[in-house]
Amino acid sequence: MTTLPGLLAASRAIQSGALDPEDYVQQCARRADEVEPWLHAFVSRASLADMFRNIGDGPLAGIPVGVKDLVATVDLPTTMGSPIYVDHMATCDAAIVTQIRQLGGVVFGKTVTTEFAWREPGPTVNPWNPAHTPGGSSSGSAAAVAAGVLPLALGTQTVGSVIRPAAYCGVVGFKASYGAIPRAGVFPLSGSLDHVGFMTRSVDDAAFAFNLLRNRVASEPDSVVLPAVLLDPEHGLAPTAAPRLALLRTPHDDKVTAEQSAALERTVAALRAGGATVEAFSLPDIYWQGIDGLHCLLEAEGGAIHRSHVDQFPDRTSMHIRDLVTRGQGRSAMQYLAARALQQTLRQGATSQLQGFDAVLTTPATGEAPLGLSFTGDPIFCALWSFTGLPAITMPIGRSANGLPLGVQLVAPYRQDAHLLRTAKWVESALARANKASTS
Amino acid sequence: MTTLPGLLAASRAIQSGALDPEDYVQQCARRADEVEPWLHAFVSRASLADMFRNIGDGPLAGIPVGVKDLVATVDLPTTMGSPIYVDHMATCDAAIVTQIRQLGGVVFGKTVTTEFAWREPGPTVNPWNPAHTPGGSSSGSAAAVAAGVLPLALGTQTVGSVIRPAAYCGVVGFKASYGAIPRAGVFPLSGSLDHVGFMTRSVDDAAFAFNLLRNRVASEPDSVVLPAVLLDPEHGLAPTAAPRLALLRTPHDDKVTAEQSAALERTVAALRAGGATVEAFSLPDIYWQGIDGLHCLLEAEGGAIHRSHVDQFPDRTSMHIRDLVTRGQGRSAMQYLAARALQQTLRQGATSQLQGFDAVLTTPATGEAPLGLSFTGDPIFCALWSFTGLPAITMPIGRSANGLPLGVQLVAPYRQDAHLLRTAKWVESALARANKASTS
Repeated sequence: MTTLPGLLAASRAIQSGALDPEDYVQQCARRADEVEPWLHAFVSRASLADMFRNIGDGPLAGIPVGVKDLVATVDLPTTMGSPIYVDHMATCDAAIVTQIRQLGGVVFGKTVTTEFAWREPGPTVNPWNPAHTPGGSSSGSAAAVAAGVLPLALGTQTVGSVIRPAAYCGVVGFKASYGAIPRAGVFPLSGSLDHVGFMTRSVDDAAFAFNLLRNRVASEPDSVVLPAVLLDPEHGLAPTAAPRLALLRTPHDDKVTAEQSAALERTVAALRAGGATVEAFSLPDIYWQGIDGLHCLLEAEGGAIHRSHVDQFPDRTSMHIRDLVTRGQGRSAMQYLAARALQQTLRQGATSQLQGFDAVLTTPATGEAPLGLSFTGDPIFCALWSFTGLPAITMPIGRSANGLPLGVQLVAPYRQDAHLLRTAKWVESALARANKASTS
Repeated sequence: MTTLPGLLAASRAIQSGALDPEDYVQQCARRADEVEPWLHAFVSRASLADMFRNIGDGPLAGIPVGVKDLVATVDLPTTMGSPIYVDHMATCDAAIVTQIRQLGGVVFGKTVTTEFAWREPGPTVNPWNPAHTPGGSSSGSAAAVAAGVLPLALGTQTVGSVIRPAAYCGVVGFKASYGAIPRAGVFPLSGSLDHVGFMTRSVDDAAFAFNLLRNRVASEPDSVVLPAVLLDPEHGLAPTAAPRLALLRTPHDDKVTAEQSAALERTVAALRAGGATVEAFSLPDIYWQGIDGLHCLLEAEGGAIHRSHVDQFPDRTSMHIRDLVTRGQGRSAMQYLAARALQQTLRQGATSQLQGFDAVLTTPATGEAPLGLSFTGDPIFCALWSFTGLPAITMPIGRSANGLPLGVQLVAPYRQDAHLLRTAKWVESALARANKASTS
């Protein structure tokens, strides 16, 4: 859709002086002006003058970033996609926003989120077909990157809110290991499940964002400090050997559309042709209890967070939020603690389950983005990775008959983010080569 | 009761060659042989030969340590005070036991705990009067140090299980800030509340143990790494200026015996005479909701831990454990999460509440150790500090008409363990001077 350089390329060009940072910001703004009337990706946008003034020094100098409107910023409202917070101005930036600014980046705008990152959708449409949902909850971030407005946007994922919209919009979505990206100042939905993630146009770009924006110190209770991934500014991620991939069978495979299945099969064939080993793989049944565990944590924690919203503003909370609170009130402390314990068990157990594999290969969604804007799609194929906190990445693998993107998802053991990114780069390159061969 | 040197003095003498480590271990063992027939402080003891062989190099070389029988050791059974675990041999040492051994110390024996550190008492008696409880749950550790058997014993505290038995037995008990002492390998009662603590004969000895046995890395989810306190091997803790102390009024003061009140009043008078400022102090009412919060966390977490014990071994779990599980099953996830949130709020809030004070001064217990062994005493005056995780220390201040010890408790803001220890040293010294003046 676009010819504007992506994150790593723009950064490299700006650092070398080949690209003027103000020009780049202005081009992004022009692209936004073009598409925003129908795309509705943004709740608010910074003015060009403000952005020019905010361009700093550092590897993100002149990089405009879309910030999901659940993430606090002092210079633009932070509405959480909720009418309760329609005029809310945060008193300080979220930690990750501070980090972006310190590295020279500018906040381009606040991107549309579903209400409190839960189910009630915002106005954003799918850039490939405005009759379809972009997915959610990080709707605006996925749409803005897909439409070529921005090289990087922040999302958050509690169930499937980074991977699913990224797949529906045909961009790269990366959710690092639980705790690896700073969460302070991000409005919580479920503290045990919430992740911050990135929307970019390539795996290299996701890796660049990960390196710059990961936690450097364990400043929050659940923070983990992960090493950077080796990334050459010129050539991107260092090459790896052909990976061994675990093609996951799940109890939910009957939800996958024939089109998505066929696209995955073609992907597997292309990867095998490129030298990868792809083997059928199943997880022990207990892993699929993780989906129930996730709902328990989400309802209990989300319910506790939103109970006062529902009590104080019954007419400004959606049915979805009210339902979440009701369900949360029905959860017992022991169910909650059992779910927390299961989460730890599965997170740790995945490392040995996946011994010998570089990553899991699975679908990011049931298929293309659903028709209509009222339902942001089924997150079932992301839920287990949100529950266990394993790093996950999605990338586009083709289009549906309706012209909507289809994707593939790769998942690695906890904390193996660097290896996942390098594996994903291998997959991305192999698919590009296969694509080139078939079209030439 | 004893003339054997305490922890710091013994360590110093051993390091300088003035005391033979085997002699010291043997003297402790002889003392144990004398008192154990009626004291019942130990579940099991290491043989002299084993201890001689285990004496290592380091600051704890030749120091025999009592290890609460809830803390895993590979060479002696770890029974948790429960008939379910009567023959249980741990497969690895608890982290703190590893640390003790690496510093040259030896495990002298496993000290009696109440069943799973909850209410069902063991056979230990109060060394000052065997008709009275030693307190619990760290019954054997308090009794063994008080009877002059050991210079150091490990306890654990979830409500009042270090401070209360230490006060009842007339020794120094120190519970560092939540997370400051390694807990891996300590059988949990309530993960959000469990602390490891020390029983010693002086504040200097508690500080020495703290410096050696605190976390050096944040190896567990709730670990905090605190700085050591300045401690001169010859003179102990560095002196501080006369402190400003907050004499705490609580909603539970009517439970304090007249004798305990009078002892505290004499203590306050002596400290004032020594130069301290002691001012009446109250906490906002919300702090006392922390007691309910503590019960919620304990019932939910303890209930979740012990449900399978009760299910599998109904005839080998006490009424107290069964009751804990029943109560835990009645707690909702939202109550649990509200208690966790309150815990964080009060922990953080205490720092500003106590601004300008060096420590809180309060009673460690309602009075002397209760008569009989079936009830280990009311932990109400320890509960808030266990809930908030603030560091707390108790030291003896006199005796009741029955000849049983009475104590005082000092508490400081979270993470201010070093300052608490130095303040406690000042108090200990001032009380010793006052005592000397009154008896001379």
